[in-house]
Amino acid sequence: MPTSPDSPWSATSSDIHDAIAEIVSTNREAALATVISVEGSGYRRPGAKMVVEPKGSVAGAVTAGCLEDSVVELSATVLDQGEPHIQTYDLTSSDDPDAWGLGLGCNGVVELLVEPIDESYQPVVDELQSGRSMTVITTLESSVSSTVAGDRAVMGENESVIPSVRGLPSHIVDAVRSSGEDFSAPETRTVQISIDGDPVRILIDRFEPAPRLLLFGGQPDAGPVVNLANSAGFDVHLHTARGGNADPGRFPSASEVTATRPSDVGDHVTRPDHTYAIVMSHNFVDDRLALESLLETEVDYIGVMGPEKRFRQLTDELPIDVDSNRIAAPVGLDLGGDEPMAIAFSIVGELLAAHNGGSGRPLSKQDGPIHPR
Amino acid sequence: MPTSPDSPWSATSSDIHDAIAEIVSTNREAALATVISVEGSGYRRPGAKMVVEPKGSVAGAVTAGCLEDSVVELSATVLDQGEPHIQTYDLTSSDDPDAWGLGLGCNGVVELLVEPIDESYQPVVDELQSGRSMTVITTLESSVSSTVAGDRAVMGENESVIPSVRGLPSHIVDAVRSSGEDFSAPETRTVQISIDGDPVRILIDRFEPAPRLLLFGGQPDAGPVVNLANSAGFDVHLHTARGGNADPGRFPSASEVTATRPSDVGDHVTRPDHTYAIVMSHNFVDDRLALESLLETEVDYIGVMGPEKRFRQLTDELPIDVDSNRIAAPVGLDLGGDEPMAIAFSIVGELLAAHNGGSGRPLSKQDGPIHPR
Repeated sequence: MPTSPDSPWSATSSDIHDAIAEIVSTNREAALATVISVEGSGYRRPGAKMVVEPKGSVAGAVTAGCLEDSVVELSATVLDQGEPHIQTYDLTSSDDPDAWGLGLGCNGVVELLVEPIDESYQPVVDELQSGRSMTVITTLESSVSSTVAGDRAVMGENESVIPSVRGLPSHIVDAVRSSGEDFSAPETRTVQISIDGDPVRILIDRFEPAPRLLLFGGQPDAGPVVNLANSAGFDVHLHTARGGNADPGRFPSASEVTATRPSDVGDHVTRPDHTYAIVMSHNFVDDRLALESLLETEVDYIGVMGPEKRFRQLTDELPIDVDSNRIAAPVGLDLGGDEPMAIAFSIVGELLAAHNGGSGRPLSKQDGPIHPR
Repeated sequence: MPTSPDSPWSATSSDIHDAIAEIVSTNREAALATVISVEGSGYRRPGAKMVVEPKGSVAGAVTAGCLEDSVVELSATVLDQGEPHIQTYDLTSSDDPDAWGLGLGCNGVVELLVEPIDESYQPVVDELQSGRSMTVITTLESSVSSTVAGDRAVMGENESVIPSVRGLPSHIVDAVRSSGEDFSAPETRTVQISIDGDPVRILIDRFEPAPRLLLFGGQPDAGPVVNLANSAGFDVHLHTARGGNADPGRFPSASEVTATRPSDVGDHVTRPDHTYAIVMSHNFVDDRLALESLLETEVDYIGVMGPEKRFRQLTDELPIDVDSNRIAAPVGLDLGGDEPMAIAFSIVGELLAAHNGGSGRPLSKQDGPIHPR
């Protein structure tokens, strides 16, 4: 699992998930703030989360710094009362030019759900730790007696509800299902359903396990890639053909360091849709065997270090077809530079772009908004 | 100055420069290995450096791991003898498929200069600490009596020679000048000159101070940018309009944290050709004043955080022309994602690309070699 971030602002969603898991397992008191909706200039999108512990320790952020102090205060109240709370912050109306209202990412209306983290999150923790995605539906506002704010249902991958405490009644879940929402869509959003003519407002929030980097190679230049990928939120599993290189102490931010036969690397892919693979052992024969093994999996990002000519030599001898859409060779974005750190930034930049659907190009040279809305 | 790297492989050239400075100032014993030339598949380019201390402590790397152990051994000999040594490693001839010869970045011929770090490096240290570039010319092989391997001249920015111990005789420097070499070219290369018909082989090596990131803004989202830029080799100077945010403890990897009036930010640009500026205070008025101040400098990379619409509002009210070639707005590469860490990777990726002349696009979608040769 990713290591703890240096500051709340370095926390990735994997770190937030780890924090929730630890709080649930140790039965500690803490609040979770989730962005429900944003109008205007919002820095974070719906689904962004922040964990607040009673002594003020914080992981994650819901805005660019405009609301975090208020959220810490509100969290204390929520924990005192033991009830979820929905708060709308309207930052558009300030007349003070020094106030946040004129600031980037704070010139909008932000709606937050702040709730105690309790055992109703146990199924979320369990699914994430098993590497599975899920959709969490939570009652925000209700005008019917059969559900109150904070009731939730955790829907696993087959869209069946995983039993939990404070579970949402099945007729509410059925009404959400009937609303035509796509539960596998990644966007966090709200939906209004009607129960016998009375409105209930529901939050639909998707949780994805940390993306996994499967790195084949154990030479020293893997070190900066492992560290940077970890800080970018990837769960790094390193496989090296050489047993002598498989000392976890060499790669402390990897979750797993294993000596693996190159032809068996693909066997370690358990969740191809969340896995990004990189082949960088530097050894020609090993790289070819590992590439062949990975091509037999469903992983659809396989980065191969080295020049295009070497990649052609690697694949010329492969007995199977190579779908170039799955392969990034040479791996990495064109950031220039030849230092190991520059190469690691190039690789992790491409991993992020592949995971989040970015092009890698400068935003200033693209049309359209920074974030898809 | 950048902090020490976790491992030799995370060392940037700034870290190597810092190591040389510390060794010279404390009069410690250590060797410096510099890549002179590479034929075939070389991972690092000429000019790549590795500092080796007698107890085996190492910063930097000259290959992908294929030669580092040999260089540590050779360094011990060089320090014993107190003389520079040139070593050629031919990695193309191995028949063993497990040997480095078949490996990526090790299937070539690499020539190294390994020399004791001594007071002849004092002018290099002085110039770097003053933020100035220089060209170092060093005798590699000589068939004349007036110079021996290891003699060097450090040429400052006006191409005048800075006096130093073991200085290269002026008639050799003059012969190098007459060879028509461009001393401001960044590529490390060798040149053969003739002294009365006898050959002398010279290394021409360029030292550049660490690129500087001038970051205007002191909100918490600056933290991940400061940390990542530092690990990428940037010397980070942070200016915040709010005195309360100017606590260096909040940004431990910045060299400087200063409360600065937004309209004075440009006054802090001392080396525009080595400076990259980012405006991300989130405050509209402050950002506009800082942008105006920076546009009055010669800095030719100014990144502005926020959507294009906000950038247009910022510049609509500016009394001066805006040269869009100097401006990256929105700042960053399109890596997707909205977490502060993802945004920091996007920004630092663009800084590296701007500094090294990269496009940001995936290398697999570009034609031509990874590194310009």
